[in-house]
Amino acid sequence: MLVQNGVKKINHNIHELLPAVNDEHGGIIVLVEDPMEPNVFHYMLKHSIKVWKLQGKKGVWIKMPIELANLVEIAVKEGFWYHHAEPDYLMLVHWIADSESTIPANASHKVSIGAIVFNHKREVYTPKLALFLLWRHQLKGSGIWKIPTGTVEEGESIFEGAIRELKEETGIDTEFLEVLAFRQIPKSFFNKSDLFFLCMMRPLSFDIQKQDLEIEAAQWMPFEEYANQPLIQKDGLSNYIKDLCLAKAERDYQGFTPMAITSSVFDDHMSSLYFLKDGLDQENSAL
Amino acid sequence: MLVQNGVKKINHNIHELLPAVNDEHGGIIVLVEDPMEPNVFHYMLKHSIKVWKLQGKKGVWIKMPIELANLVEIAVKEGFWYHHAEPDYLMLVHWIADSESTIPANASHKVSIGAIVFNHKREVYTPKLALFLLWRHQLKGSGIWKIPTGTVEEGESIFEGAIRELKEETGIDTEFLEVLAFRQIPKSFFNKSDLFFLCMMRPLSFDIQKQDLEIEAAQWMPFEEYANQPLIQKDGLSNYIKDLCLAKAERDYQGFTPMAITSSVFDDHMSSLYFLKDGLDQENSAL
Repeated sequence: MLVQNGVKKINHNIHELLPAVNDEHGGIIVLVEDPMEPNVFHYMLKHSIKVWKLQGKKGVWIKMPIELANLVEIAVKEGFWYHHAEPDYLMLVHWIADSESTIPANASHKVSIGAIVFNHKREVYTPKLALFLLWRHQLKGSGIWKIPTGTVEEGESIFEGAIRELKEETGIDTEFLEVLAFRQIPKSFFNKSDLFFLCMMRPLSFDIQKQDLEIEAAQWMPFEEYANQPLIQKDGLSNYIKDLCLAKAERDYQGFTPMAITSSVFDDHMSSLYFLKDGLDQENSAL
Repeated sequence: MLVQNGVKKINHNIHELLPAVNDEHGGIIVLVEDPMEPNVFHYMLKHSIKVWKLQGKKGVWIKMPIELANLVEIAVKEGFWYHHAEPDYLMLVHWIADSESTIPANASHKVSIGAIVFNHKREVYTPKLALFLLWRHQLKGSGIWKIPTGTVEEGESIFEGAIRELKEETGIDTEFLEVLAFRQIPKSFFNKSDLFFLCMMRPLSFDIQKQDLEIEAAQWMPFEEYANQPLIQKDGLSNYIKDLCLAKAERDYQGFTPMAITSSVFDDHMSSLYFLKDGLDQENSAL
């Protein structure tokens, strides 16, 4: 490797294969990390595909860093199409086998959570949106106290996301109890959809220390005061959230509780199954 | 527009702005559809961004068709990064305002459904996986009768997806009742996650006509016969599905029922809220 003017120059042996790792499904993932002359990449890509075809490979993936955007066109010319993209890379894919493609669909949903946290005084944890968020929502007035919400990050569990958001926002520790409801919004941005999970949390600490720029303040607020805010009463979803809070606090409303399971025969992923635990326990105890 | 050798050539006036439409959040979406000389695109992009900045635009999106992969590099040079991609296009984005970026996160989850359909004889609708699917799952033996599953398509509701899958697979019409449970698999493919919704359906027709290549056969199968298959008993998820079926069929297990709601204050999207309907009705009737 030569370093000239701060740019790494790699001397590639064009008779070698592109750097790649096998995936679990008979495919291969090309990992191009360093700058490459377009014509060198083109030659090596064609050569590699010929070899991988002979080896019986099926799907070929190219994880292309955004810094190498100049190579995208070449991959497309060789029959690759786009699978997904993140801010710093584009994932291209090409099915080179004769059999039917088993390339998985792209992600279609963003996942977010809303958290309900009651303390023992029947107060609910409520942050107040910062001004710029009110603008974003085109809301006027002096603000609104809402339940905390946030995006579940890539690769994160719903329950982990809820615990993290509360911790980051104001430093309170919580335990995840159950999902009270969920909302699906098809086509909420471009053709992608939203899934919002309303989570019941138990507080493990109570000292609020505001840390997040998106909120102006946060407090434990008497539930009735929260529920009686005009904007909460005007809003369809907020009304349901309020009713679900009441049903949970005063009656026997039950949501879905997560349980760790592995499928084992059809896949071996660690996962969480969320269901009405009491409903299943009754059944099992009756057997 | 000239057509030379079957290729459309567009004469662009480089002093014009790129073709674009406003979005709902103070941003703008560039829609480049026809081939363009890279240097013309580069000039127009720089010029357009200057104008849009003066106009107070915030986020600039470029929906770049895969046919124009040669222009990706130029957009990246001008400060754009990748937001998401689908097989036929790449969405680039650039926040040109001084304020904090409010660009939404990319989709992180694929959504699929599994459907439970009982007829009045306590038989459950079960397709048998085709051989190539058994290979994909690396299963041996003469096959397995499973509940039908499928991917919820982009922009589709969970309940619509369940109804469509059953209709496409074997032509039976169903009504959506409730979500009995859901499973989240973090990082199931690359860094993306899976959400699987187990749906209880009521059949409206009973005549099975196999239409889908992914299944070898389909039948109404006595529930016990389904549940006693060795592979079903060995598999963690399948065991829970079996227990949930029983709890639903024999006892009072309740899942989440969808209800159409609009939020109205914080967004105006049509959406579905899934919750334990009886749990909320009791509450409301008590008020």
